[in-house]
Amino acid sequence: MKKIALCLILAGLSISLQGQQDIFQRAAIVSPEINEDGTVIFRLMGPEANEVSISGSWMSASSFQLMQKQGDSLWVHTTQVLEPGFYRYSFTIDGVRAIDPANAHVIRDVASISNVFLLEGGRADHYKVQDVPHGSVAYRWYDSPGNDKKRRLSVYTPPGYEGSTRDYPVLYLLHGIGGDEEAWLGSGRVAQIMDNLIGAGKAKPMIVVMPNGNVAQEAAPGKGSAGFVQPTFMLPNTMDGQFEQTFGDIMNFVESNYRTLGTKEGRAIAGLSMGGHHTAYISLNYPNTFNYIGLFSAALNVNPEGLPDSPVYQGLEEKLIAQKGNGYALYWIAIGEEDFPILYQGVQQHRKLLDKLGMEHTYLETAGGHTWANWRRYLTEFVPLIFIND
Amino acid sequence: MKKIALCLILAGLSISLQGQQDIFQRAAIVSPEINEDGTVIFRLMGPEANEVSISGSWMSASSFQLMQKQGDSLWVHTTQVLEPGFYRYSFTIDGVRAIDPANAHVIRDVASISNVFLLEGGRADHYKVQDVPHGSVAYRWYDSPGNDKKRRLSVYTPPGYEGSTRDYPVLYLLHGIGGDEEAWLGSGRVAQIMDNLIGAGKAKPMIVVMPNGNVAQEAAPGKGSAGFVQPTFMLPNTMDGQFEQTFGDIMNFVESNYRTLGTKEGRAIAGLSMGGHHTAYISLNYPNTFNYIGLFSAALNVNPEGLPDSPVYQGLEEKLIAQKGNGYALYWIAIGEEDFPILYQGVQQHRKLLDKLGMEHTYLETAGGHTWANWRRYLTEFVPLIFIND
Repeated sequence: MKKIALCLILAGLSISLQGQQDIFQRAAIVSPEINEDGTVIFRLMGPEANEVSISGSWMSASSFQLMQKQGDSLWVHTTQVLEPGFYRYSFTIDGVRAIDPANAHVIRDVASISNVFLLEGGRADHYKVQDVPHGSVAYRWYDSPGNDKKRRLSVYTPPGYEGSTRDYPVLYLLHGIGGDEEAWLGSGRVAQIMDNLIGAGKAKPMIVVMPNGNVAQEAAPGKGSAGFVQPTFMLPNTMDGQFEQTFGDIMNFVESNYRTLGTKEGRAIAGLSMGGHHTAYISLNYPNTFNYIGLFSAALNVNPEGLPDSPVYQGLEEKLIAQKGNGYALYWIAIGEEDFPILYQGVQQHRKLLDKLGMEHTYLETAGGHTWANWRRYLTEFVPLIFIND
Repeated sequence: MKKIALCLILAGLSISLQGQQDIFQRAAIVSPEINEDGTVIFRLMGPEANEVSISGSWMSASSFQLMQKQGDSLWVHTTQVLEPGFYRYSFTIDGVRAIDPANAHVIRDVASISNVFLLEGGRADHYKVQDVPHGSVAYRWYDSPGNDKKRRLSVYTPPGYEGSTRDYPVLYLLHGIGGDEEAWLGSGRVAQIMDNLIGAGKAKPMIVVMPNGNVAQEAAPGKGSAGFVQPTFMLPNTMDGQFEQTFGDIMNFVESNYRTLGTKEGRAIAGLSMGGHHTAYISLNYPNTFNYIGLFSAALNVNPEGLPDSPVYQGLEEKLIAQKGNGYALYWIAIGEEDFPILYQGVQQHRKLLDKLGMEHTYLETAGGHTWANWRRYLTEFVPLIFIND
């Protein structure tokens, strides 16, 4: 009885807190409601709204569905049966993009805040928090003399890392244009994917390092001394060679701050879109350093005038020949068949060059386009293939 | 010229990406715009909206301001001159609570997502990322046999921790009801406050451990195996003694995973609201363990029927007398003069009891109420007072 009384007091306290700090928003409705058949119901209380629509990552690009008004105030939309997955969505209320007030789970992707939900089953079970041992996630600052600044990165260390004395292999995992050191952990579900693959014995325990590929930034917007600046794609120095040239600063930090194998056999590098471009050139300009290379929807050859005149991009064929001579265990390329034609063609052109030089590579072409759904999948497929002979 | 061409291509790519994944939202407008005189302008494009209002943490509880429509589509509100601070705000568009689509910086507080901005100057400069050495922030999982689960906590380690071999003091910092292991880092700006105080020589380098005080949870909503559940105040076992009883699991983890002093002189504990209640009783039930105790707007004695019948809450006076006998360096209490009367009275009652027992304590009464503005301030004032004799 005392417990019940205490709960009632706390409930009263909660209601008061709402007045005092507006921190409690009681959802009179449930949204999203995920049904067992794979349909999902969205609800919004908007008695005064004239038009409400929903956009979601299960829809085709730029499309939306009008929500239906039920009674005086409730707007509802029920999806068709969706595949299991980790989905984003947002509402548009009388012309203004908005989040679902009944769902506190949001994610930032570049400058957009969207709600998220997870529809369990199949591959999506890799993206949920399961009852397996959990690794740690840390945000660290490293010194980058090459960029004359301290910079922030994210590091996943596998379960058991802290309590052991052994050395671990390292996967360097790079984001796309507009992303930052938080992108792979947020949209990419890296901590969950790694925990689940390692827990199931499908991947070797490894350190995953997620740097910020925008050398003009110290850190993700809001996390560096530039303050709460609005995120943008339009940063300088994103693909001009400077990130690749200063990548050694990151490796120096990682290898002197973590128990790493410190060998080529113990290093992998992979990246999505711009990060795929970075990956290809870092693997060439740090010769004999990486044994496993992953290009996910890589933004190769996007400039018809040719690459910028950084030494990083010069002598491509000779560097590839050297890479072949030094050897590598895996050169893994994946892209969606609906990706941007310029990227799709760039990837095929790169594959032709590899073929011409007799460089073995694994190629995966999936449905879909330039999406996080594909990048989560690619990570889930790539990681079990690396460090397998250690 | 090649760089410009590449930028143009990338710009084109960005525009296409928008279509393909809806990740880029070009803000045609700037919002918020922070003026040098301390006024702030908010703008929203909403040609079809009928009524738009703004609520912000600089306003009094539950109040709002209607925004003015300028021309066909732009809604505008300009504040009066605000004090420097870290502020939250949200819009209400035709009756629906919404975030500012032009501001990608949001924070979750319990179940509400709000935008944030920082108005520099004065105490607020402690809350911004400055050009000082930065500590690390890690999310770790620890084993809690007392709760029969793995649980997640956050740890701030000071600049230089990783590169040194010395032992550090530890501040255990507890959140309020409805919060979790992310609350102090998000709303509380702990990493920035600690970096800035340590960088200015105003605080000793210390480890700050921020556990989850809701023993019914593994982790913050969305971060544990319960999935993307909606956050709520109404969790079981929040103030029934179980968190206090199992706090030893947290200390065991910290002292075996970090280089800590491992002495009473090297341990502080502080918390806000429910965390203040937890702090008071943990400091009593782990005798002679903490040298520095901080109660921030503590929720003491909220139950008129008396505390739950956990051994944690029995024998209060005897435990206080033992605490006095064992000694402590600092017993620091702060509350806002506009806090909930039940909390304000509980704190005064506790102070009377301390006085009756001849227990020295420092008392700070500030303007304002039960708000993060006060809790950030209290942390900023408390931290320079601890571990000063080490």
